[in-house]
Amino acid sequence: MRIDVLSLFPEMFSVPMHDSIIGKAIENEIIDFNVTNFREFTQDKHRHVDDYPFGGGAGMLLQAQPIIDAYQQTKAAAANAGVAAGKVILLDPAGKQFNQHAAETLAQDDHLTFICGHYEGYDERIRSIVTDEYSIGDFVLTGGELPAMVMIDAITRLIPGVLGNNQSKVEESFSTGLLEEPQYTRPADFRGMKVPEVLMNGDHKKIALWNQKEALRRTYRRRPDLIDHQKLTSTQKHLLADVRIEEEERAVDSNGDKKKPFTQN
Amino acid sequence: MRIDVLSLFPEMFSVPMHDSIIGKAIENEIIDFNVTNFREFTQDKHRHVDDYPFGGGAGMLLQAQPIIDAYQQTKAAAANAGVAAGKVILLDPAGKQFNQHAAETLAQDDHLTFICGHYEGYDERIRSIVTDEYSIGDFVLTGGELPAMVMIDAITRLIPGVLGNNQSKVEESFSTGLLEEPQYTRPADFRGMKVPEVLMNGDHKKIALWNQKEALRRTYRRRPDLIDHQKLTSTQKHLLADVRIEEEERAVDSNGDKKKPFTQN
Repeated sequence: MRIDVLSLFPEMFSVPMHDSIIGKAIENEIIDFNVTNFREFTQDKHRHVDDYPFGGGAGMLLQAQPIIDAYQQTKAAAANAGVAAGKVILLDPAGKQFNQHAAETLAQDDHLTFICGHYEGYDERIRSIVTDEYSIGDFVLTGGELPAMVMIDAITRLIPGVLGNNQSKVEESFSTGLLEEPQYTRPADFRGMKVPEVLMNGDHKKIALWNQKEALRRTYRRRPDLIDHQKLTSTQKHLLADVRIEEEERAVDSNGDKKKPFTQN
Repeated sequence: MRIDVLSLFPEMFSVPMHDSIIGKAIENEIIDFNVTNFREFTQDKHRHVDDYPFGGGAGMLLQAQPIIDAYQQTKAAAANAGVAAGKVILLDPAGKQFNQHAAETLAQDDHLTFICGHYEGYDERIRSIVTDEYSIGDFVLTGGELPAMVMIDAITRLIPGVLGNNQSKVEESFSTGLLEEPQYTRPADFRGMKVPEVLMNGDHKKIALWNQKEALRRTYRRRPDLIDHQKLTSTQKHLLADVRIEEEERAVDSNGDKKKPFTQN
């Protein structure tokens, strides 16, 4: 996959995108990653890329010309490398909500271009080259660089060969629709906080049941909206019934206060 | 505000958090930003910070000891600097959804600690020091660093003095609950794509009406769920009625296809 990023702060991508897993994928040429500073394309003699909005209003807008011309050049560079122009993604608070399904879809593509804004907003005509607009959530950020990195991370880790054989369990968790159960590693007793007995007795049937039950419990407590009763197995339905009773009793015991599993150390 | 980050990849924060607006706030000592590599705190002779899960399962878990000991030290360092220990935030897919309201609440605090995970997950006992768990969205990332940066960006830009006087219009947009109207800057005619006449005639009443109407139109098209009819002014209600009729006619004209405002240049 070829990824082009258009940004005024290309150096922001230098470490996060070259460290750890994504960096390895770039090294192994699974991903061809390019960042272009669209300030290089301005025709303004002061090298400005922003200007006041027509009709008044606070703040500055990014002009169409530098971004569109930068895009034309990266598109040509991609074509030279044998890659047909792919989706052009604008990071914008008014865009579609990015989620795992969108990551899976975008991971199929051969070419993605991300346009990272800054300042107050964009000249509307920038949208003439845009195919998709995404927001990573209902919060305001100082620029489009961090959400672009988030999207690139979520997308590229799904490309075959990027994560290697250590397929993440998180995926399973997402596909069952339940949150993950609590997990424990050594030591068995850490400053008085003990690993549940069942996980250490080697009875894999019991462990599997405990895992299912605690995944249901965590989901019941935190994201009951995620529980799709039609998708639950018969075992899970029984476990969920138990969880419900236990949680209701716990709520009564603690007089409505939520108990933390451990006290602070 | 003092911010502590516990991460295995401290260098990932080097550029994104020191560039642009957040970097200025650090320079101006509005934010005291510290990243601690919790690998420094491991008691393992091979400097490992992860281990196999009890009860089996794929992947590795971060151990409790290095993270908890790193936290104890940053807490002590904060206390030495006169800052009482504040919220300890775990980045986790099972956490609460981070949003602008959470950013506003967290921006009031004097101290925040972010724990960034990697690998498959955490030993459950790490949660003994955690006060809040957040997720930035329903997608899977390779680590907690990018979401921590996203949260820090969204939070710190709300701290007085960080953004300066150029208060963002985006905030207004979020507080009215509507998406922003299209905006335009120079030139008035860019390769045949023209700025709407109304924005250039200097009639501020007409411009204000156009802005309101186009904000309603964009919201109606993309996020109709955001329109709270009880909060609309009488003028907005009339404008929305017009938008509805125009959009329905447009849908008929184009035989159900969505028209883009500009053709690709």
